[in-house]
Amino acid sequence: MTASPERIHDIAHLGSVELLTPKLDRSLWYFKDVLGMEVVHVDGQSVYLRGYGDHAASALKLTAAARPGVGCISWRAIGAAALERRVKAIEATGQGLGWIDGDFCRGPSYRFRDPDGHLMEVYYEEQKYVAPDHLRSTLKNLPMRYTAKGVNVRRTDHLALLARDVPANRAFAQTALGFRMHEQVLFEHGTKEIGAWLSPSIVHHQVAYVLDVKGGSGRLHHFSLWVDDRADVLRAAAILAENGIFIEAGPSRHNHSQGFYRYSYAPGGNRIEVYSGSYLVTAPDWEPVTWNEEERGTGVYWGTPLPESFLTYATPDIAAEAAPALKVPVFDPG
Amino acid sequence: MTASPERIHDIAHLGSVELLTPKLDRSLWYFKDVLGMEVVHVDGQSVYLRGYGDHAASALKLTAAARPGVGCISWRAIGAAALERRVKAIEATGQGLGWIDGDFCRGPSYRFRDPDGHLMEVYYEEQKYVAPDHLRSTLKNLPMRYTAKGVNVRRTDHLALLARDVPANRAFAQTALGFRMHEQVLFEHGTKEIGAWLSPSIVHHQVAYVLDVKGGSGRLHHFSLWVDDRADVLRAAAILAENGIFIEAGPSRHNHSQGFYRYSYAPGGNRIEVYSGSYLVTAPDWEPVTWNEEERGTGVYWGTPLPESFLTYATPDIAAEAAPALKVPVFDPG
Amino acid sequence: MTASPERIHDIAHLGSVELLTPKLDRSLWYFKDVLGMEVVHVDGQSVYLRGYGDHAASALKLTAAARPGVGCISWRAIGAAALERRVKAIEATGQGLGWIDGDFCRGPSYRFRDPDGHLMEVYYEEQKYVAPDHLRSTLKNLPMRYTAKGVNVRRTDHLALLARDVPANRAFAQTALGFRMHEQVLFEHGTKEIGAWLSPSIVHHQVAYVLDVKGGSGRLHHFSLWVDDRADVLRAAAILAENGIFIEAGPSRHNHSQGFYRYSYAPGGNRIEVYSGSYLVTAPDWEPVTWNEEERGTGVYWGTPLPESFLTYATPDIAAEAAPALKVPVFDPG
Amino acid sequence: MTASPERIHDIAHLGSVELLTPKLDRSLWYFKDVLGMEVVHVDGQSVYLRGYGDHAASALKLTAAARPGVGCISWRAIGAAALERRVKAIEATGQGLGWIDGDFCRGPSYRFRDPDGHLMEVYYEEQKYVAPDHLRSTLKNLPMRYTAKGVNVRRTDHLALLARDVPANRAFAQTALGFRMHEQVLFEHGTKEIGAWLSPSIVHHQVAYVLDVKGGSGRLHHFSLWVDDRADVLRAAAILAENGIFIEAGPSRHNHSQGFYRYSYAPGGNRIEVYSGSYLVTAPDWEPVTWNEEERGTGVYWGTPLPESFLTYATPDIAAEAAPALKVPVFDPG
Repeated sequence: MTASPERIHDIAHLGSVELLTPKLDRSLWYFKDVLGMEVVHVDGQSVYLRGYGDHAASALKLTAAARPGVGCISWRAIGAAALERRVKAIEATGQGLGWIDGDFCRGPSYRFRDPDGHLMEVYYEEQKYVAPDHLRSTLKNLPMRYTAKGVNVRRTDHLALLARDVPANRAFAQTALGFRMHEQVLFEHGTKEIGAWLSPSIVHHQVAYVLDVKGGSGRLHHFSLWVDDRADVLRAAAILAENGIFIEAGPSRHNHSQGFYRYSYAPGGNRIEVYSGSYLVTAPDWEPVTWNEEERGTGVYWGTPLPESFLTYATPDIAAEAAPALKVPVFDPG
Repeated sequence: MTASPERIHDIAHLGSVELLTPKLDRSLWYFKDVLGMEVVHVDGQSVYLRGYGDHAASALKLTAAARPGVGCISWRAIGAAALERRVKAIEATGQGLGWIDGDFCRGPSYRFRDPDGHLMEVYYEEQKYVAPDHLRSTLKNLPMRYTAKGVNVRRTDHLALLARDVPANRAFAQTALGFRMHEQVLFEHGTKEIGAWLSPSIVHHQVAYVLDVKGGSGRLHHFSLWVDDRADVLRAAAILAENGIFIEAGPSRHNHSQGFYRYSYAPGGNRIEVYSGSYLVTAPDWEPVTWNEEERGTGVYWGTPLPESFLTYATPDIAAEAAPALKVPVFDPG
Repeated sequence: MTASPERIHDIAHLGSVELLTPKLDRSLWYFKDVLGMEVVHVDGQSVYLRGYGDHAASALKLTAAARPGVGCISWRAIGAAALERRVKAIEATGQGLGWIDGDFCRGPSYRFRDPDGHLMEVYYEEQKYVAPDHLRSTLKNLPMRYTAKGVNVRRTDHLALLARDVPANRAFAQTALGFRMHEQVLFEHGTKEIGAWLSPSIVHHQVAYVLDVKGGSGRLHHFSLWVDDRADVLRAAAILAENGIFIEAGPSRHNHSQGFYRYSYAPGGNRIEVYSGSYLVTAPDWEPVTWNEEERGTGVYWGTPLPESFLTYATPDIAAEAAPALKVPVFDPG
Repeated sequence: MTASPERIHDIAHLGSVELLTPKLDRSLWYFKDVLGMEVVHVDGQSVYLRGYGDHAASALKLTAAARPGVGCISWRAIGAAALERRVKAIEATGQGLGWIDGDFCRGPSYRFRDPDGHLMEVYYEEQKYVAPDHLRSTLKNLPMRYTAKGVNVRRTDHLALLARDVPANRAFAQTALGFRMHEQVLFEHGTKEIGAWLSPSIVHHQVAYVLDVKGGSGRLHHFSLWVDDRADVLRAAAILAENGIFIEAGPSRHNHSQGFYRYSYAPGGNRIEVYSGSYLVTAPDWEPVTWNEEERGTGVYWGTPLPESFLTYATPDIAAEAAPALKVPVFDPG
């Protein structure tokens, strides 16, 4: 056994995600009343929300826009020096856009785009959330009380992005952000990389890159919110159904992360996952688990095939181009 | 906000724990048939076991001994350089014992004792577990199949150690091992530290140091095994009851880690926890949550007080010394 | 085997329960906002509520009163002829009070008192609940939508009454109401009956009579509301805690019904149970399961002893009389 | 409101089901090792099994046969007089076959066929199960210990039968057996009855009759076994997958009974359901909930459509006849 290279550990976690929506009011209803998140701030056409367990003041920013999709994706560094290292590494890729003052409750942030064009930023300084009296929990280690409204998601978990070139975006995340790949999908005898699950920590994944079969760019597959228990995912299923939300798949279990899931579409069109139970990757010499056509296609573990839309629909939605990037069997980009 | 010091991140996770037992056969029955662990190796008076989700070949070593308690506690470094750094840091404390060849499936290990006398070691090289055919899972990312025997614990989670001097042992874990403290208990207006929950990663804790109220040394409060869901803890409660195992507490929920638990005594006397649902600490600027007499004593979150034994019993069991180290209200060392 | 006598099957189920409360506003908040019941009617000092799965318009009536306790307990007959049979049987006991017009949404009701003085009534005609549009479920077989507010209890399950003379009240329920006893507690070598669990159907129990150790009469031990899953009971535990409700016991599992429970006190003082998972008694030749001191006292099945208050506190609360009716070990009247 | 006719209440519950299998050994492995049932008796080519919560000695009889399907379906009467009444009612329909001595642990049984040809019997006398020492539970009200093997189903719940003529079979069950219909599916503007869910008690259903779209007769759609909790159904999903069992659908939730389910095929070919969480029908004036094409077809409640096989496959399997009995949209016969 040879000595392993030191692992980069500069990014702590996915800080927040901005979702674009053509139906701000209905989207707000969905995240606030159905999923049970708390509104902490409003600024023009943007609303800032949080789950009861999110450490930061806000982990989700909803912004009115002509089309649904993902806006800025923010990553928190573990410290000021780590932030500097990441900025240098990003600049070296030529993808850097420069510093901004920082969004709600955050200090200076360095913006960039991944090779597929998704807007991202890294930052370190952040104002800790302090709950107002009526939202203080009886549990001292909970930043906010469990309010028991709707699904009552706990916190942000991860997001999945589509990309024309999965290996390029995966490599960028590894090099510029220091993420580690925990699982991947390789088709055509290992020559065609169509999915990669990456993480800055031992969390299974905080971002996935999956092939955009329609050849688009900068698109969102889904944004995922955590609940503590599989029973909470089942409960979410009932709540989403009772509220007339379009439900696409689940409750079921992903092969790749072992996560238990339920997918629905927020009123603006974005695919949202309620999620629980994925495994932690603590082994420092973990080798990415690699799946191929057969293993992905069968969905044998839980037996329920995913609908075609799960492969073809993303936000913003686009028509398939003349020559789709790749013909692939249905697989699970979750 | 000033620049934060870089965080040490050299230890990946709790590698394995050796438990001593005066009743090896009955203890083996408990871990194998009741808790559902798999035996992977036998060597003289020691048996090596694993949960179906443990990455390493073995995460629990049962060793016959005159009295129950904890043997060697092994920590895995994230790489060879990290291992060297930790060995130097340990040597600097004067607690080092030196290198050994390495236990079952492991490379060279450096042994030491914490200030309270618990035997520990750090290592990096480890043989990955490869399941024999009959134990291979249909899930490629699961090292071993879910065998559905008994409680069927997934993996090791953490352990809690008693100590005469909590701050000294806590500081050793921080300095020599690079652990971070996520929660603590301070009595007497913040002057008396009687519990500290520490972790090498974003896992809530992998070791806790709690005051030994009987003034002993090198003792074990409990060893904890993970199941994926609170429902699995409830199921464990029924299985333990049906097998006539002594049950001390739970199912209930800890205030401090929000973990859901069930405590029973293995036939040899060690206290074993079946555990799920603790929270992750991803914030890089997390400040330890601090509890005091009142907050610990009320147990208000779930309402069920812990039994006196939970504070006074540990392994090996000893009589209270003439002058107990400290009179404390009952708190939750879980 | 000899031919069994035909079983009486005239009462369908516990129709509704009236709870008295000296704090109507706070009690209403507890049942409506914390437990998630729906208010369907208000009449003077009484508020009528329902769980989302209750068939009748209302299954709980909250009435302002000087002291907490139970008001009228209503039993629904399976038909008009069955109702007549029960009225005759009740009249034959000398406990009858006579007919009234019927409470909210109910037809004529015959009132009586059990030997211990609890007020009861039997009726058949009842107006079926029809949900207003905003409360209509997407599930056609659900009378009302799952609103996802607070604990969101589904329906009434049962109640437990204290009695000076358990056998007299148990026999009355068997003879006058046609209930069957499914379990009992007999102390002093089978000579002292201190608890009986009775049901009009295969539901484990809809009423329990338990010895009033303080020698009171007409008192309520607890009223129990059903949730569909043990996970819902765990969730209730968190919600009750976050709302500062006094929690007495659980989550845990009763020996006697195998039901999973959580006890809290409504603001007015009544003990309320959130309950799930009891077993059905389908066997027509079921012999009551009989427990004695030892079996009740150990609480061995789940290991967590019940607090003293669970035996001594009931509503309205009274001081222990000069000579308590019986010295008994702590047992589980749940 | 007019007086309701007295409800017939002569059958207590589904006593046992005989399943035919061309692969007795593998089927036995499936029920014993995967589902965790206990073998209580072997007689020639038949094996008798039980769940840990079944009251009777055996609730499932596996019999070797050339083709899979259902053998005899046994219904237990509530007493000797009730049995006589049912025998008379059955004889009046001309479907009676006569008395037999009674199968394992049962007294005299009267055999008959439903209009579709399924073999059935009614009986009352039955030997209560007494667990041998090693299977005795610590819970006095549990007939057998929870052994924690595999899925560990608790008890028989119900079965679904296909029929050429649903109304004829439904009416037979109502008239001859005294069952009540709790839900039904009516297509073509209420003129075509294609499914009926019936029960002798407040259990949601113990038998369903569903249209045989291939025009067969005497066929089995599925046999259903109960577990206590939705979490147990999820656990079953993992166990079935790990054992290479063919999984057809779920975990998901039925619209019609609100039951949570998982369908797999036993090695011999019979469809087996692991089931939990259906609702009780306690209202004496319950009107059958009626579903039509649109409501059945959308599967809107949980959003996951059922596979085509769920409508077309039954045991014994047959080719579709020249003219299938009815073209119907996919619905849920669960």
